[in-house]
Amino acid sequence: MDLINETRLWSTINDLAAITIEDQPWTRRSFTAKYNEGREWLMKQMRESGLEVEVDEGSNVIGRLIGTEPNLPSIVIGSHTDTVPNGGRFDGIAGVLAGLEIVRALKENNIPVKHTIEVVDFTAEEPSEYGLSTVGSRAWSGNLTEEMLSYTNSEGQSLGDAISYAGGKPNDIKNCEKDKGSIALYLELHIEQGPVLLRKNANLGVVTGIVGIQRYKISVDGLPNHSGTTPMDMRNDALTAASEMTLALESVANGKFDQPVVGTVGVFNNFPNASNVVPGRVEFIVEIRSISEEAIDAVADEFLSKVYVIASKRDVKVETENVSRSGAIVISDKIKQLLIESCSSITDKVIQLPSGAGHDANQMSLLAPVGMVFIPCKDGRSHCPEEWAEKEDLYLGAKALLNAVLAFSKQEQ
Amino acid sequence: MDLINETRLWSTINDLAAITIEDQPWTRRSFTAKYNEGREWLMKQMRESGLEVEVDEGSNVIGRLIGTEPNLPSIVIGSHTDTVPNGGRFDGIAGVLAGLEIVRALKENNIPVKHTIEVVDFTAEEPSEYGLSTVGSRAWSGNLTEEMLSYTNSEGQSLGDAISYAGGKPNDIKNCEKDKGSIALYLELHIEQGPVLLRKNANLGVVTGIVGIQRYKISVDGLPNHSGTTPMDMRNDALTAASEMTLALESVANGKFDQPVVGTVGVFNNFPNASNVVPGRVEFIVEIRSISEEAIDAVADEFLSKVYVIASKRDVKVETENVSRSGAIVISDKIKQLLIESCSSITDKVIQLPSGAGHDANQMSLLAPVGMVFIPCKDGRSHCPEEWAEKEDLYLGAKALLNAVLAFSKQEQ
Repeated sequence: MDLINETRLWSTINDLAAITIEDQPWTRRSFTAKYNEGREWLMKQMRESGLEVEVDEGSNVIGRLIGTEPNLPSIVIGSHTDTVPNGGRFDGIAGVLAGLEIVRALKENNIPVKHTIEVVDFTAEEPSEYGLSTVGSRAWSGNLTEEMLSYTNSEGQSLGDAISYAGGKPNDIKNCEKDKGSIALYLELHIEQGPVLLRKNANLGVVTGIVGIQRYKISVDGLPNHSGTTPMDMRNDALTAASEMTLALESVANGKFDQPVVGTVGVFNNFPNASNVVPGRVEFIVEIRSISEEAIDAVADEFLSKVYVIASKRDVKVETENVSRSGAIVISDKIKQLLIESCSSITDKVIQLPSGAGHDANQMSLLAPVGMVFIPCKDGRSHCPEEWAEKEDLYLGAKALLNAVLAFSKQEQ
Repeated sequence: MDLINETRLWSTINDLAAITIEDQPWTRRSFTAKYNEGREWLMKQMRESGLEVEVDEGSNVIGRLIGTEPNLPSIVIGSHTDTVPNGGRFDGIAGVLAGLEIVRALKENNIPVKHTIEVVDFTAEEPSEYGLSTVGSRAWSGNLTEEMLSYTNSEGQSLGDAISYAGGKPNDIKNCEKDKGSIALYLELHIEQGPVLLRKNANLGVVTGIVGIQRYKISVDGLPNHSGTTPMDMRNDALTAASEMTLALESVANGKFDQPVVGTVGVFNNFPNASNVVPGRVEFIVEIRSISEEAIDAVADEFLSKVYVIASKRDVKVETENVSRSGAIVISDKIKQLLIESCSSITDKVIQLPSGAGHDANQMSLLAPVGMVFIPCKDGRSHCPEEWAEKEDLYLGAKALLNAVLAFSKQEQ
């Protein structure tokens, strides 16, 4: 039985994507008028589909299909409708609108489900102008502190005020915090934001976990000497030292570990940055990600020890600082199995892969079992106007999630 | 006979250095009121020493001691009195004031010299706010074009107007152009601006040549992918490629050539420079210097061929552009010998070395035989407030130049 309406899902995605700042597609930044316009459109769709609609204290938009056993914990299908500046048409809204399509399909086909299903548009998943991401799912998990609510944007407006503007109640934010056990399952469909599904010719990816992230700031101090008057063997060149360190990270991350790991130097600043001065200082940020925290630690240890060897050999000073650390999330075997079965029942092009990016699922994992399904995106690209997903993959993804909801609800007591 | 007055030379250097922007020592930028104030002080010293003083069309300040055979071509001793922002107390003025001390010594000791000696403060040797350096010596060599005179500073004032402000006559600039043969010898004393004299425990350095310079702009284009979702083996990382290229330059410049060569990456810019994005583009500037143009060409060729191999191996695009090229200047054996003898007669701590930096001598070499003597500077540093030279080394340098003038004038017919 083909419950998911492929054409409807595609057109709702296009309709919501079209709500963008006109001269900067596709931009719908959190806490802006355009963001509110998109959510008004979403709530209208939810109401017309017969869902109970709520905007909670964290300004999360919730569309609720009451289950036949309303006392059971709910099944939540969520993602977000905000974008980065000059973002794309699928990141976030694919997950929210797949959720909407799933409840529409259940309702119009009169398929009873024991659990209440909540389709949630979590507030500000992307890095907001207030220096915080996953704002709405943090409100649910209890990780949105008073201090965070006082963060300000460049105009001095607070995050609390921004949540009010989006319809929330920052003073009562604790009221939307969820108890462990109040949610039976959290599911999220998302574009992969990477090239793996495409390269492996897969339509659906069952996420095995969400990577942990460690970031280090490395400062290399040499001597900013005149490039013409300082012979090669009398230099303390911060740039050649930092270049060797950058290649060392690449080499270490390419080693063998229990799980795949990536090591990236993304930020790299050279000083004084003049063509006739041997660089005196380089500051760079190293990021290491893996779903294996052991692998992250092993890469960090090996890299940092190489950094000190290089600094000593080249007679430059180095300072290393661990600037952030977030833990990996491992999807339970039970949920992974549920999703592998629901995906494999509709296509044989299914792989398992870790999520290299963070999602609202990170916060939700503190409250409930979580599962994620990825669909391919063109050239592996996201967060850019060219971001693209295929209509058929969106259909397959929504269908897989619907199958998972039905199977889960059936098997749960 | 001790003709050079060590104390007087030291105090004139200190007096002129003290004419600085007060809150930004030691700054006396060309074409400012402070610059004019310094030159008024200089001209007063020249007049009090009995020199004929002239400000020519290029606003060069000239103090002239007429020789006993005034029809002979002149001997010019020169350098500059402008500084870089937050510069030092010796770069430039050491050479001008050594010239002043030499003519003072000749005059007060009634030592006749056949050749007229001109002590010259060349206009704006350092990079000026108008995007040009060695302005005054260019006016002499004929390399100050109409187009250059129309260069503007950030306030829209032209270089021509600035020369007028400094006492020159930009409309008659051609009048100060010198004929080849009108100058018998150009001598310049300068701080080394590098660490070689210090490391070799030498008091005086006879310059063997002034390096040629080639600069290349290298642009590396990879793909700016998400750092979390792009596995190591699916990356086209512009930064790791550029790092390997930077190390390749270092390695090539460290090779064996007929003359020493230096290769520097001084400017290095990474894009988009975000911690969670694999770098998509790096632009960097490569500079190669040597007094052997063959060595420069050999380094450039070997480096560029390595660049293309690295780009191909790493599947990134690369563009290379030769953005500037200035020829090397080789000091003649005759002048080198003259200076080696005059230096060695007063100290046994004399070495020969190339000048890695450009000077007014670059322009003067188009008109006349040139010779330069370097004295050590503390830690090899210049163009900074800490720039320092020792009183005794300044004395030795001035004495060596005086000896050279006397020997040259005597031997010339």
